[in-house]
Amino acid sequence: MVNRSEINMADVARRANVSVATVSRALRGLPGVGEATRARILEIAEELAYVISPEASRLSSGQTGRVGVVVPATQIWFYGEMLAAIERRLREADLDVLLYQVSDEEVRMRFFRDLPTRRKVDAVVLIALPLPQLEVDRLDHLGVEVVVAGGRVRDFPYVEVDDRAIAATAVDHLVGLGHERIALIRATNYGEIHWAPDVLRLEGYLMALSAAGIPDRSEYVVSVPFTPHDGAAGAEELMALPEPPTAILCFSDEIAIGAMEAVRRAGLRVPEDVSIVGIDDHPFAAVMGLTTIRQDVDAQGEAAANMALRRLDHAPVDNLVIPHELVIRTSTAPPRS
Amino acid sequence: MVNRSEINMADVARRANVSVATVSRALRGLPGVGEATRARILEIAEELAYVISPEASRLSSGQTGRVGVVVPATQIWFYGEMLAAIERRLREADLDVLLYQVSDEEVRMRFFRDLPTRRKVDAVVLIALPLPQLEVDRLDHLGVEVVVAGGRVRDFPYVEVDDRAIAATAVDHLVGLGHERIALIRATNYGEIHWAPDVLRLEGYLMALSAAGIPDRSEYVVSVPFTPHDGAAGAEELMALPEPPTAILCFSDEIAIGAMEAVRRAGLRVPEDVSIVGIDDHPFAAVMGLTTIRQDVDAQGEAAANMALRRLDHAPVDNLVIPHELVIRTSTAPPRS
Repeated sequence: MVNRSEINMADVARRANVSVATVSRALRGLPGVGEATRARILEIAEELAYVISPEASRLSSGQTGRVGVVVPATQIWFYGEMLAAIERRLREADLDVLLYQVSDEEVRMRFFRDLPTRRKVDAVVLIALPLPQLEVDRLDHLGVEVVVAGGRVRDFPYVEVDDRAIAATAVDHLVGLGHERIALIRATNYGEIHWAPDVLRLEGYLMALSAAGIPDRSEYVVSVPFTPHDGAAGAEELMALPEPPTAILCFSDEIAIGAMEAVRRAGLRVPEDVSIVGIDDHPFAAVMGLTTIRQDVDAQGEAAANMALRRLDHAPVDNLVIPHELVIRTSTAPPRS
Repeated sequence: MVNRSEINMADVARRANVSVATVSRALRGLPGVGEATRARILEIAEELAYVISPEASRLSSGQTGRVGVVVPATQIWFYGEMLAAIERRLREADLDVLLYQVSDEEVRMRFFRDLPTRRKVDAVVLIALPLPQLEVDRLDHLGVEVVVAGGRVRDFPYVEVDDRAIAATAVDHLVGLGHERIALIRATNYGEIHWAPDVLRLEGYLMALSAAGIPDRSEYVVSVPFTPHDGAAGAEELMALPEPPTAILCFSDEIAIGAMEAVRRAGLRVPEDVSIVGIDDHPFAAVMGLTTIRQDVDAQGEAAANMALRRLDHAPVDNLVIPHELVIRTSTAPPRS
């Protein structure tokens, strides 16, 4: 039985009758090693149960080989999808992902107070989340590269979508169908915190109405927490108005799916009585026939990971706006005349 | 400007005029330090930008302070919810989570070939995923504690639900309503891999039918990949039968929601024409009115994390079966007579 702790790259090289450099290249998947040689080296390395020790090789250079990903909650699709793309890309680059879930205020405050990433990671990818100014200020103290995915935080490099244009695209679609009574269900569940996507989508909604010459009506804008259940409640509130809207733009597909259900429960039909548009292109949107503004979350995550990799190489990065796309399905139609 | 790298616990102790042991206890949140003292120590530590170096303190004892969590895909709700609970619990215990997403066969094979967890983590929580025998065999070589969340893999300690009983509970509910033509949409998208929940739920379905004296009909069992879209396709296949079922049990709520949409698109009503039952209690289930068998994924994740913590303390652990619960909503009703 081989004692694993004693195996090193030289043992593999000796057994394979190649140089240590060749073993290193083969194990790291770098070019310059023939396929047969690579296969033989991998086989021997496996036989000897050789594993590169990341601590030993990276600590000496002051690098941890890890990137922290900060996310509010992995069970929400948007964050799970973003995290999936970031992890996949960083894994391809042989970096490990340290997960920081900052789901409630206490955990979030603790994260920013303890600055736990220092000496644990080389960089942090912050998946956009609502942050109070105090915590934003603390990000400076992390002492590592920071990039932001899905929004902006301070002056850190970012990947985002154009939230204003997203909302405007949705309103333009509804106006084009002939709607004038267009409502918005916002997602504002963050107390005093400025949550940019919500504010920007509201702005885009108001701008697009104004551009179409449609006066905005304050009773057509309702704010709900971010769940399908609350989306349903928001739609119920709108349908109970003396003059209910003929179309509803929802902050997300999750809220839109709740709204669709509420409309159906009220004995009305989508889209005959009410058109509904979401934002995201959630995996449920297609099967529900939901018209939506697709934002490519996977592309945002991958781009943010690439940005972190470039920062780690001390290479310059450009902020990136990922394009969105109107996906027309069966939840929107002209209003009843 | 203080040079952070030179700050150590003794500096904090000196400035606070307490012992190094007291600083250590205060920073780690252990009892035995008065509130005022703790607050002062934290303030000074913050002022000095002191951070415990996990590498320095843990490497020497052979501990990394990290637990690896292996998950197929974070954007699927079940896995995201499980990961959320595991991360939360481990974070409370001051451990970091290293995320390994093994979304496709290539990545999974690479994970098990490279055994990357060795020297990187102290333990692995494996969120149940379909594994070929070859990879199951490799788990022995990880060289760290392994616990399994949401199923069983070999003889590792596990937290699971009773999949057979879950399916039987659903069938019993439908039989109780008077249904006899009860179909099952399975999720079998894993080639030759034995995927226990799918097999066990099929067994539970067949057992419950048999117990009710209802002969099973092979055309009432369809297999689909695990997406809402495929759930819809499965339901369409069933509805096209010469004698379609009056009730459909679905492997998951995601599949059930797809099935509900397909039934509606076919011009039929849920539950008047077809009853539908899911499994999970997905966040969308309540708003969709979906009757389901709730499995407490959060509790499974938390229990698995606790199990990993006990294993790290070399404490004995007991396997755990988390109870499930029938949640009756509006998608099930007696069949039309």
